[in-house]
Amino acid sequence: LVSKLPDVGTSIFAVMSQLAAECGAINLAQGFPDYDPPQVLTEALARHATTPGHQQYAPMPGLLRLREQISRKTALLYGVTPPDPDTEITVTSGATEALYAVLAAVVRPGDEVLVFEPAYDLYGPAIRLQGGVPVYVPLRLPDFRPDWDLVAAALTPRTRLVLLNTPHNPSGAVLTADDLRTLGRLLENTATLVLSDEVYEHMVFDGRQHRSARQEPTLAERSFVLSSFGKTYHATGWKVGYCVAPPQLTAEVRRVHQFITFAVSTPTQHALADILADTSLYTTLPGFYQRKRDQFAALLHATGFELLPTQGAYFQLARYQQLSTTDDVTFARYLTREAGVAVVPVSAFYHDGRDHGLIRFCFAKRDETLVAAATRLRSPR
Amino acid sequence: LVSKLPDVGTSIFAVMSQLAAECGAINLAQGFPDYDPPQVLTEALARHATTPGHQQYAPMPGLLRLREQISRKTALLYGVTPPDPDTEITVTSGATEALYAVLAAVVRPGDEVLVFEPAYDLYGPAIRLQGGVPVYVPLRLPDFRPDWDLVAAALTPRTRLVLLNTPHNPSGAVLTADDLRTLGRLLENTATLVLSDEVYEHMVFDGRQHRSARQEPTLAERSFVLSSFGKTYHATGWKVGYCVAPPQLTAEVRRVHQFITFAVSTPTQHALADILADTSLYTTLPGFYQRKRDQFAALLHATGFELLPTQGAYFQLARYQQLSTTDDVTFARYLTREAGVAVVPVSAFYHDGRDHGLIRFCFAKRDETLVAAATRLRSPR
Ligand SMILES: CSCCC(=O)C(=O)O
Ligand SMILES: CSCCC(=O)C(=O)O
Repeated sequence: LVSKLPDVGTSIFAVMSQLAAECGAINLAQGFPDYDPPQVLTEALARHATTPGHQQYAPMPGLLRLREQISRKTALLYGVTPPDPDTEITVTSGATEALYAVLAAVVRPGDEVLVFEPAYDLYGPAIRLQGGVPVYVPLRLPDFRPDWDLVAAALTPRTRLVLLNTPHNPSGAVLTADDLRTLGRLLENTATLVLSDEVYEHMVFDGRQHRSARQEPTLAERSFVLSSFGKTYHATGWKVGYCVAPPQLTAEVRRVHQFITFAVSTPTQHALADILADTSLYTTLPGFYQRKRDQFAALLHATGFELLPTQGAYFQLARYQQLSTTDDVTFARYLTREAGVAVVPVSAFYHDGRDHGLIRFCFAKRDETLVAAATRLRSPR
Repeated sequence: LVSKLPDVGTSIFAVMSQLAAECGAINLAQGFPDYDPPQVLTEALARHATTPGHQQYAPMPGLLRLREQISRKTALLYGVTPPDPDTEITVTSGATEALYAVLAAVVRPGDEVLVFEPAYDLYGPAIRLQGGVPVYVPLRLPDFRPDWDLVAAALTPRTRLVLLNTPHNPSGAVLTADDLRTLGRLLENTATLVLSDEVYEHMVFDGRQHRSARQEPTLAERSFVLSSFGKTYHATGWKVGYCVAPPQLTAEVRRVHQFITFAVSTPTQHALADILADTSLYTTLPGFYQRKRDQFAALLHATGFELLPTQGAYFQLARYQQLSTTDDVTFARYLTREAGVAVVPVSAFYHDGRDHGLIRFCFAKRDETLVAAATRLRSPR
């Protein structure tokens, strides 16, 4: 059996989590919190797990009551017309499946897909599995802003899709209304579609506002907007995400979603539908995570790490050049093994392993975890 | 946006369930029970839903404790060496994702995949999404046995995969050890792999034994064996399945699984791991479903339906030629609308809509549901 992705190994997140477990390291690598979902949510799942009649197949596009809640929430948050639950919303097995389904639905062999780098490590391989060609456009350091001239130069008649990710993993950079408008203008009169991965939509700091592709009139009609409940509700292990897109695009997502997973856990969908109207569960997140960001930065003060600005998501990038001159993979492994703190090397977010001497910390951790990690980072074992 | 599957509509199961809901019909169409999972299982999910630390990402290949239980169960059931949880077992979002992941991992554009018809309606489109070419081999009516001469004639150097499904949906036909040995001989010295969908493994009647591709030495080394907890534990809405395959094949499944869904619900995996060692939960299934099959057959006696023999799974095929001369789609819709009993037309299991004048009933229903359905079938509204 000859591999279809011979050069692709195990996802860096799984690799570093595994190494963290082996070394007894504090895991600031993979992006998940070390606290639990709100009690109203876990109790809702417990309730629906034992509710007769809630244990069989959900409808293929998702439970209607969950899609209705997603529609209301989208309208409320973004001040847009509510997306139609019947024709514009599809519930998926995490945002990962939503991303895969969009790619499977629209990318044909030879199609180009524009990807900003650094990028979440699954984008490239998932595009290649469809026979697509990822076209990588580097974000500008140190602020990780797109250079729209580079984008304009990279677009061709073969560009099937542009992938956005805002707030951005790993940098936390946030696209502005201007950015989205500029992209909208560039795509006018083309058949190029947009996939906007917005799973960190509720984590934006310093008074900034998340701006969704759904809000930009020139993009909304050509955009698949993905989000997930895993990051928002501290439930990354629940694996429920969704895709919002105009009817014609949604029809194609569903056409493949029905063959990829068919449907998503029924009791879990019920539990989420129960709590989605409670806005306090997510309006508190910017404050909650901004405090963690600032606390972690203070803890790392005078360690020799140079911290990059973080506008959103729950990651902190750091330059380590005052501490080491090795490549970032070696340094990430060294920190995991010797300091007992697992991190992700940012080169894993580049298809060619480009090394800027940066590592990524996840700060979605309890205060005591952040304190313990910082203590270890100040004085390696 | 030009569809990649322009000729593929919504899965017949979703269509008929929707129609059943609209007409207030008893749903004997989509394959799911109208009773709940064992209480030990739903209580286990309720417990893990509220267990701190069980709500974040499971490991990409599945929770180790669940994979260990799957390994033990496989060894116990099939009298084989326990598959290695580390290298031979992958937990997926239902058997649907397992099937999709195997196809995505091994089928390249132009590869042929041999599919016996009638076939579960997702096989063909899922193959075509990889650029593969489904090569359909009809099963012999009325017993739905493979004709191995037809298989031999259909195999070519381009045959990448042979899809098996035993017990068979929709007919309930069960492959024998002889069948598997014959296929093993046909594939000797070829690079053709086997995908064996065995989700109904615990539902085999009249003293027959399910025979797994994992048990046939000449097949095991080239086989992906899929199963699911949905059918076994009356929990089709939980969406947890798995793939057992030799290390080299498993490595390729995981390589794509990590990009399709990455991981499966953590609390749900914990709940399943808790109960997998309790053999009584599945050794009772043949008796349980055989009684339902026989009861349903007795209820349909003298209705004009001619029932075909059913060796396994939870479906009953019926010829309706004494009742109507219309095509099976029209007849299935008529039954749903007019008699108030939703069924699936068997032509939906043929890529070319071949019509043998057969419909499929699902008898995984409470006794009173079967009685009510039979009453309606005897005297249409
Ligand atoms: C699917 S594991 C990766 C989790 C994550 O979003 C990250 O660490 O970037
Ligand atoms: C995924 S819905 C189909 C359920 C099923 O197995 C069937 O009805 O055949």
